[in-house]
Amino acid sequence: DFLNALHEVVPAFGASTDDLERCRLNGIVDCGQRHDHIFKRTMLLAEQVKVSRGSPLVTVLLEGPSGSGKTAMAATVGIGSDFPYVKIISAESMIGLSEPSKCAQIVKVFEDAYKSTLSIIVLDDIERLLEYVAIGPRFSNLISQTLMVLLKRLPPKGKNMLVIGTTSEVSFLESVGVCDAFSVTYHVPTLKTEDAKKASFIVLRQLNVFSKDDVDAAAEALNDMPIKRLYMVVEMAAQGESGGSAEAIYSGKETIKMSHFYDCLQDIVRY
Amino acid sequence: DFLNALHEVVPAFGASTDDLERCRLNGIVDCGQRHDHIFKRTMLLAEQVKVSRGSPLVTVLLEGPSGSGKTAMAATVGIGSDFPYVKIISAESMIGLSEPSKCAQIVKVFEDAYKSTLSIIVLDDIERLLEYVAIGPRFSNLISQTLMVLLKRLPPKGKNMLVIGTTSEVSFLESVGVCDAFSVTYHVPTLKTEDAKKASFIVLRQLNVFSKDDVDAAAEALNDMPIKRLYMVVEMAAQGESGGSAEAIYSGKETIKMSHFYDCLQDIVRY
Amino acid sequence: DFLNALHEVVPAFGASTDDLERCRLNGIVDCGQRHDHIFKRTMLLAEQVKVSRGSPLVTVLLEGPSGSGKTAMAATVGIGSDFPYVKIISAESMIGLSEPSKCAQIVKVFEDAYKSTLSIIVLDDIERLLEYVAIGPRFSNLISQTLMVLLKRLPPKGKNMLVIGTTSEVSFLESVGVCDAFSVTYHVPTLKTEDAKKASFIVLRQLNVFSKDDVDAAAEALNDMPIKRLYMVVEMAAQGESGGSAEAIYSGKETIKMSHFYDCLQDIVRY
Amino acid sequence: DFLNALHEVVPAFGASTDDLERCRLNGIVDCGQRHDHIFKRTMLLAEQVKVSRGSPLVTVLLEGPSGSGKTAMAATVGIGSDFPYVKIISAESMIGLSEPSKCAQIVKVFEDAYKSTLSIIVLDDIERLLEYVAIGPRFSNLISQTLMVLLKRLPPKGKNMLVIGTTSEVSFLESVGVCDAFSVTYHVPTLKTEDAKKASFIVLRQLNVFSKDDVDAAAEALNDMPIKRLYMVVEMAAQGESGGSAEAIYSGKETIKMSHFYDCLQDIVRY
Amino acid sequence: DFLNALHEVVPAFGASTDDLERCRLNGIVDCGQRHDHIFKRTMLLAEQVKVSRGSPLVTVLLEGPSGSGKTAMAATVGIGSDFPYVKIISAESMIGLSEPSKCAQIVKVFEDAYKSTLSIIVLDDIERLLEYVAIGPRFSNLISQTLMVLLKRLPPKGKNMLVIGTTSEVSFLESVGVCDAFSVTYHVPTLKTEDAKKASFIVLRQLNVFSKDDVDAAAEALNDMPIKRLYMVVEMAAQGESGGSAEAIYSGKETIKMSHFYDCLQDIVRY
Amino acid sequence: DFLNALHEVVPAFGASTDDLERCRLNGIVDCGQRHDHIFKRTMLLAEQVKVSRGSPLVTVLLEGPSGSGKTAMAATVGIGSDFPYVKIISAESMIGLSEPSKCAQIVKVFEDAYKSTLSIIVLDDIERLLEYVAIGPRFSNLISQTLMVLLKRLPPKGKNMLVIGTTSEVSFLESVGVCDAFSVTYHVPTLKTEDAKKASFIVLRQLNVFSKDDVDAAAEALNDMPIKRLYMVVEMAAQGESGGSAEAIYSGKETIKMSHFYDCLQDIVRY
Ligand SMILES: Nc1ncnc2c1ncn2[C@@H]1O[C@H](COP(=O)(O)OP(=O)(O)OP(=O)(O)O)[C@@H](O)[C@H]1O
Ligand SMILES: Nc1ncnc2c1ncn2[C@@H]1O[C@H](COP(=O)(O)OP(=O)(O)OP(=O)(O)O)[C@@H](O)[C@H]1O
Ligand SMILES: Nc1ncnc2c1ncn2[C@@H]1O[C@H](COP(=O)(O)OP(=O)(O)OP(=O)(O)O)[C@@H](O)[C@H]1O
Ligand SMILES: Nc1ncnc2c1ncn2[C@@H]1O[C@H](COP(=O)(O)OP(=O)(O)OP(=O)(O)O)[C@@H](O)[C@H]1O
Ligand SMILES: Nc1ncnc2c1ncn2[C@@H]1O[C@H](COP(=O)(O)OP(=O)(O)OP(=O)(O)O)[C@@H](O)[C@H]1O
Ligand SMILES: Nc1ncnc2c1ncn2[C@@H]1O[C@H](COP(=O)(O)OP(=O)(O)OP(=O)(O)O)[C@@H](O)[C@H]1O
Ligand SMILES: [Mg+2]
Ligand SMILES: [Mg+2]
Ligand SMILES: [Mg+2]
Ligand SMILES: [Mg+2]
Ligand SMILES: [Mg+2]
Ligand SMILES: [Mg+2]
Repeated sequence: DFLNALHEVVPAFGASTDDLERCRLNGIVDCGQRHDHIFKRTMLLAEQVKVSRGSPLVTVLLEGPSGSGKTAMAATVGIGSDFPYVKIISAESMIGLSEPSKCAQIVKVFEDAYKSTLSIIVLDDIERLLEYVAIGPRFSNLISQTLMVLLKRLPPKGKNMLVIGTTSEVSFLESVGVCDAFSVTYHVPTLKTEDAKKASFIVLRQLNVFSKDDVDAAAEALNDMPIKRLYMVVEMAAQGESGGSAEAIYSGKETIKMSHFYDCLQDIVRY
Repeated sequence: DFLNALHEVVPAFGASTDDLERCRLNGIVDCGQRHDHIFKRTMLLAEQVKVSRGSPLVTVLLEGPSGSGKTAMAATVGIGSDFPYVKIISAESMIGLSEPSKCAQIVKVFEDAYKSTLSIIVLDDIERLLEYVAIGPRFSNLISQTLMVLLKRLPPKGKNMLVIGTTSEVSFLESVGVCDAFSVTYHVPTLKTEDAKKASFIVLRQLNVFSKDDVDAAAEALNDMPIKRLYMVVEMAAQGESGGSAEAIYSGKETIKMSHFYDCLQDIVRY
Repeated sequence: DFLNALHEVVPAFGASTDDLERCRLNGIVDCGQRHDHIFKRTMLLAEQVKVSRGSPLVTVLLEGPSGSGKTAMAATVGIGSDFPYVKIISAESMIGLSEPSKCAQIVKVFEDAYKSTLSIIVLDDIERLLEYVAIGPRFSNLISQTLMVLLKRLPPKGKNMLVIGTTSEVSFLESVGVCDAFSVTYHVPTLKTEDAKKASFIVLRQLNVFSKDDVDAAAEALNDMPIKRLYMVVEMAAQGESGGSAEAIYSGKETIKMSHFYDCLQDIVRY
Repeated sequence: DFLNALHEVVPAFGASTDDLERCRLNGIVDCGQRHDHIFKRTMLLAEQVKVSRGSPLVTVLLEGPSGSGKTAMAATVGIGSDFPYVKIISAESMIGLSEPSKCAQIVKVFEDAYKSTLSIIVLDDIERLLEYVAIGPRFSNLISQTLMVLLKRLPPKGKNMLVIGTTSEVSFLESVGVCDAFSVTYHVPTLKTEDAKKASFIVLRQLNVFSKDDVDAAAEALNDMPIKRLYMVVEMAAQGESGGSAEAIYSGKETIKMSHFYDCLQDIVRY
Repeated sequence: DFLNALHEVVPAFGASTDDLERCRLNGIVDCGQRHDHIFKRTMLLAEQVKVSRGSPLVTVLLEGPSGSGKTAMAATVGIGSDFPYVKIISAESMIGLSEPSKCAQIVKVFEDAYKSTLSIIVLDDIERLLEYVAIGPRFSNLISQTLMVLLKRLPPKGKNMLVIGTTSEVSFLESVGVCDAFSVTYHVPTLKTEDAKKASFIVLRQLNVFSKDDVDAAAEALNDMPIKRLYMVVEMAAQGESGGSAEAIYSGKETIKMSHFYDCLQDIVRY
Repeated sequence: DFLNALHEVVPAFGASTDDLERCRLNGIVDCGQRHDHIFKRTMLLAEQVKVSRGSPLVTVLLEGPSGSGKTAMAATVGIGSDFPYVKIISAESMIGLSEPSKCAQIVKVFEDAYKSTLSIIVLDDIERLLEYVAIGPRFSNLISQTLMVLLKRLPPKGKNMLVIGTTSEVSFLESVGVCDAFSVTYHVPTLKTEDAKKASFIVLRQLNVFSKDDVDAAAEALNDMPIKRLYMVVEMAAQGESGGSAEAIYSGKETIKMSHFYDCLQDIVRY
């Protein structure tokens, strides 16, 4: 079944920058020191892979709350590196496939990567790849076993590889042993420290939607929010209470009313 | 299996207003401020989707007790919007299908919607789509994984989409992580506040089946009832104790006897 | 699998009075006020379905201990109504079928009923249809999901339907949510009140097997027994201690000895 | 699958006395009042079935510890009745069959029996038919559902049937609801009362293997033992300590040494 | 599936002494009174089967810790009897087979044996035949049901059979009811009593690898060890600390150093 | 299914030194007395197998924390022995195969080995072969049963075999009984004692990346680390804080900055 599945999969070489760009739809703004530190370190690992003598395979896991910017960061490392093979493995392109087919597709990407001297593979949202659900818990052991073996199997002689995983369910990954299969782990936080507050100033100002006085209050209210939700709140608020004001606000003619902004914040799913 | 299932599914484009109208068989009466507020906010999200720059996908969950009016409200938003593609995904049209076939059918609707510039998809009674049952609990993880990916996957460039989910089992949805996959959530209540009582006056008067004095007492007895059950009680009561009086009551010649009305209230399954 | 199953099923239209009569093998005797009340109310619901404007689908559940007379009562409503389509769905005609085949058969009955202006469907012994067993508990979720959807799906325009369910495992049905899918519920009791005692007088006298003095004592001993077991006890006792006396007793030449009657009562499986 | 299985099964009509005789390999000795009482009552039920007006189906369960004589008693009733159709359903003739095939074979026996005016079916060792094992517990729900329906389904008009079940796991049968599906239940005990002691005298004397003085002591030691194990102990003891004495003992030339008899009693698996 | 499997199995008649001899690779030494007692009793049961009148089937279970000599003893009984059919059923010859195939192979051996007037079947390592694992626990219910039926099913008229089971997981066998299906049970112990110590003297002296003074100390250290492990320890110790001394020791030129002997004892997996 | 799988597997004879060398990519440095002791003992067992009379099969398990050097040690024994058949069985070459196929592949290696007079089989990372995951726990019982039988099944006459297992989940192996199937077990530790510290000096000096003073501090910080992670930390640190210094450090022109070294130590996944 698995072997059949393997043959059905059409090979897809090389780095598809389009896919990676789509992972950071709102661009990259300064999110404070921690985000910065993790990004630099992951870039350093890419460099290490390039020059390594004894470690042809380096694996790093970016974990943190939903929406904290893990996928965007992994994509940015992939784009920033000049590796000939960069590929993202995501549940989005495997909807509804059987476990063996998903497995075969994942293996295929690794086999393709082994043909390249230098490669980066992003295992995005590993809990989704594993079809994890907290009740039970349930997950695909076939896929988890496959990942654990792939994360330890050395590429052929002369080929070096960096694997970047992302997850918002790190304690689950720990409990199945996938976490230990990575050599390095970084925690990507929400925007909760002073640094993060500064970062949100930038976002908010950049969006240019608040009156000068309100930016401070808004930033305060956004404390401890993931960067991804920030964009949603602002856009909701920009519609105005009775709609129709979006154009006026984006063009700078109007600003967002604070009371409406707080209302929108309430509607957002607790994170 | 899934891929086969996908091919068997015949595409069905566009908004079928008939289906949507059937979802609000008893029309829409004023159910108080909360119902009104949620309706307006959901309409605003539809507007936001139309003008959005950075969020091509907005997802909102309407949750609340059985019969509180969630499906009727979602249908009303779909009818009220002028989106070219509006579609309801319901367990009713997938009775007895296997999990992969259901999955394929759901994916098909999203794929169709991606071809439209603006689209609304109603995921009705998500716990039923997931084949949820409290014992175990059991549910289809294949479908829950599919929904979680679809609720986060961005439509192709230039296409915008609003997804409205409904459920009366919000705590289950939370426990499987489907709840967090929505960006916004609203609680649709029963008719329990003063506002709601006023609302029921309207229903009761409109139905014109009580004597003037009884309307108050009846409304009091109906406190904290879902709007959907209200219609059932009234219709039962209208038959009269020994039957046959329905025509007389609907034509206004007779009114409902209060003692019989209270009896009927008792027979109704506890909600 | 399910679809295949659906095609294999041969359609069977109309009301088969024979089947319904077989459900009340011992006829209908007066079992007291409660039985009477439930019967009348269920007949009223049938009437309501006939004249309804806003509720094309009414669903009622008869629940109570094993042998209390639920199936016989449902059959009697079916016979008493003058609906063109009356059908009983029972596990007896689906022995050994796979879950999808059972499902298909159930759906088939509903589809047939939708073609009739007025229809009654009896879902008999729902726990048996669901293949329920207390250990686990185990049951067919495929069938329970199907029932929950069918119990809420509206018939096509202009078609009205009454569904009567019966069960002796109401707490199980509650735990899987099937109970809430019904709009009305009635509890059918054993013969335990004074009323019931009177009822058993009738049965006992009618059977004419006791001496005048013994009828009172026998009725007392039968307190809180389901009507169905009553017939079994009497028939056992009628054989006499050493057999052979049945004919003499039924023809009124002999009466049942009380000591033997009490013995038989002991052998009966605790209810 | 089940339907195929049904067709593969070759019909086998009528009462096979050979099979029934094999069920009481050691004949029937007097085991005391309780055994006697149960036997008579079960024979009475057979008579009742013959003359019944209102109960075409009577079902009785013989339950008790392993080896207490349940199967032998059921077989004896079958032989003693003059019913044209008597059949034993046992796991022995279905070794290694799949659940649907076993199911089909059971249904086949009932269908055959329905063709006979009077029939007896012995469901032997129901826990083995259900593939019961205490760990879990596990069992075949397919077969248990089938049995529960068959135990309640009425034979066609004019056909009467007695079903005798046997089990040594009555509490398991209760927990799955199979117990309640029988109308009458009898507990078949070990040889533990004075009556039983007398019974064992008979067995022991009949076997004629003890010296006159030892019979009392031996009978005492055998208190609370199932009748079936009694035969095993005696035969073991009859070999003598160093073997070879069996012939001498059975021919009455030697008697069993009591010390060796007690040793053998120890080796017997705790019952 | 099972029936197919049954046909694929090629029949294999008669007693294969080679197989049985391979089960006692290290021969049989005196292991003390208990071992002796069990062996004699099991030989007596074989004799009983030969002369039996009323018990055509005798079943005995040898249970005890891993390596205590159960299989070797069963094999020795098989060799010692002069039965025309002696066969060992072991997981070793069924590696990787499916449950139905294993089942069919087991049934096949019984069917073959039924053709012989006298037969012995050794069910070796029943927990391995049942694919038992403590976690869960998991095991093959198909095989356990098959064994329970086979252990009670009488051979055809005129054919007598002895079944010897072995297991080191007696409490598991009890929990699934397989234990009760045997008529006799014996516990085969480790070498823990004085008797056993004497026995190990024999092994040790026989092996001739210790100096006269060390034999006592060595025997003491070996207290409570299964006979099978004893051979392993001695052979390990015989290599000497730095290897190469095996030949010298076995030829009697050197003796084992006690300190090294104790070291080896430590490395042995806790039993 | 299993038998098919067996035929698909292409035989692969003999010792592939390349595979074994790849298992100790970083060579073998002195890791202290314990590592040394285990290595020597395992070599002795290989010698014992060569000269054995009574034990044609010896099995040894190397267990210890992830990265402690188990696989490298087993490979080194395989290379060091002069056995004609040395083979490693690893999950890496069986990714995505079904359980029966994996099983067949494992059996194949044993069957091949049986053809050689002397053979070594390395069962690498047994928990991975068993597809173990802590949640549940889940694992392949098919494979665990196969291993337990293979670890006890004697090779054909005249063929001797050493099996070396490795695992970092020894308590799991114990719970499924695989541990007891080995005759000898050794615990391979991390570098935690004084000995180990000396060993790390060697590694660190050999790598020549620290200034003389820093070696002590670095070794201290590395206490209780598995040898495998040591190489990763050093290589990370060698990149320098802002990258690019690897060449300078490896060529001895620069040394690693201690503060950066501690940072890298933090990033390493907790072991
Ligand atoms: N410094 C930053 N780092 C990461 N993302 C940023 C940054 N600045 C802006 N963003 C934007 O924030 C969003 C982060 O979303 P992203 O999908 O990466 O989060 P995530 O942690 O992967 O979420 P999830 O847990 O749902 O997968 C992106 O739209 C990205 O363009
Ligand atoms: N303001 C209102 N909002 C919603 N429904 C209304 C309103 N006024 C009247 N209704 C009527 O009330 C009924 C609400 O039923 P609906 O099926 O929407 O409830 P629901 O919450 O989806 O129930 P369920 O949990 O069973 O799916 C409809 O028949 C609708 O016509
Ligand atoms: N008033 C009555 N109501 C119902 N049944 C009656 C009445 N009078 C007599 N009977 C007889 O009592 C019996 C009731 O059995 P019935 O099968 O309906 O019980 P049940 O509650 O459906 O049992 P179960 O739980 O086993 O399905 C029938 O044989 C019926 O003829
Ligand atoms: N009065 C008696 N009643 C029953 N069996 C008797 C009696 N007298 C002697 N026997 C003998 O005792 C044995 C009873 O065994 P039987 O198989 O009937 O027990 P069982 O209760 O069915 O055991 P199990 O629980 O193992 O199925 C038979 O061999 C039978 O010949
Ligand atoms: N008196 C004896 N009884 C049994 N075995 C003996 C005796 N003397 C020596 N042996 C040897 O001891 C070993 C016993 O191993 P055996 O395989 O029979 O143990 P076991 O209890 O079946 O172990 P396991 O639980 O692993 O199946 C055999 O090699 C046998 O030759
Ligand atoms: N004395 C030594 N013993 C073992 N390995 C050593 C030794 N010296 C250096 N090494 C190196 O250390 C590494 C040990 O890794 P190895 O894969 O053997 O660990 P492991 O215990 O099998 O890990 P895992 O639990 O992940 O399988 C190898 O790269 C090996 O070259
Ligand atoms: Mg992400
Ligand atoms: Mg709804
Ligand atoms: Mg009923
Ligand atoms: Mg029996
Ligand atoms: Mg053994
Ligand atoms: Mg390893």
